[in-house]
Amino acid sequence: MALTGCLARDLMDSETHPDSLTHDWGGRTISASTGRYPIGGAIMATFMDVHHHMKGITAEDLRAAHKADLDIQDDEKVDFKNAWADPESGLVYCLSEAPSADAVLRIHERAGHPADEIHPVPLIV
Amino acid sequence: MALTGCLARDLMDSETHPDSLTHDWGGRTISASTGRYPIGGAIMATFMDVHHHMKGITAEDLRAAHKADLDIQDDEKVDFKNAWADPESGLVYCLSEAPSADAVLRIHERAGHPADEIHPVPLIV
Repeated sequence: MALTGCLARDLMDSETHPDSLTHDWGGRTISASTGRYPIGGAIMATFMDVHHHMKGITAEDLRAAHKADLDIQDDEKVDFKNAWADPESGLVYCLSEAPSADAVLRIHERAGHPADEIHPVPLIV
Repeated sequence: MALTGCLARDLMDSETHPDSLTHDWGGRTISASTGRYPIGGAIMATFMDVHHHMKGITAEDLRAAHKADLDIQDDEKVDFKNAWADPESGLVYCLSEAPSADAVLRIHERAGHPADEIHPVPLIV
């Protein structure tokens, strides 16, 4: 599995160097350096993960894959939001809130569709 | 600009071979072969475009870039929804509804931040 971007360990390391810079988005106070924010007592961040090999995926396949994630996401405190799929290129983009990139990856792996990339996306419009 | 995935011309070509297969999502009846659906008299599709070279982007940069798109999007009947940015990798993902991939690309180009990839994403959960 090829992983690019900043992974969970980097995010956790950066939390050991807190700064006072934050930005507000959607009512959340987001750390400008880590992209992290509190939800329900957990420190969360937003992630976009990408699957590269889903050529021919159907609407039913996508719904089933998403349901498989939702069924076990609580085990890792992940909250999968949306997924967008292109059956022609085989690309699937998944948006989630989670305590770490590793948590997202573990859920996708256990659900049978490991992600090829994951990126924290601390900036959102 | 490297473009991958199915571009506007492919989508338009596929519309000359209509089929009766559709799926319903969010109250829309979406063509299963083209991912297209009517909105306000226009035939639209959903696109995810990706920018690769935005390392160091700030929240303010992202807001300004998004506003620059919104300011001119009506010229091409594009409706930019959200964008998610990772300042560390420099990746920015933009979600839009538009009549074609080319329409999205033209708006991004004119707004000063050409996209590196664009993909129709007809399947959404």
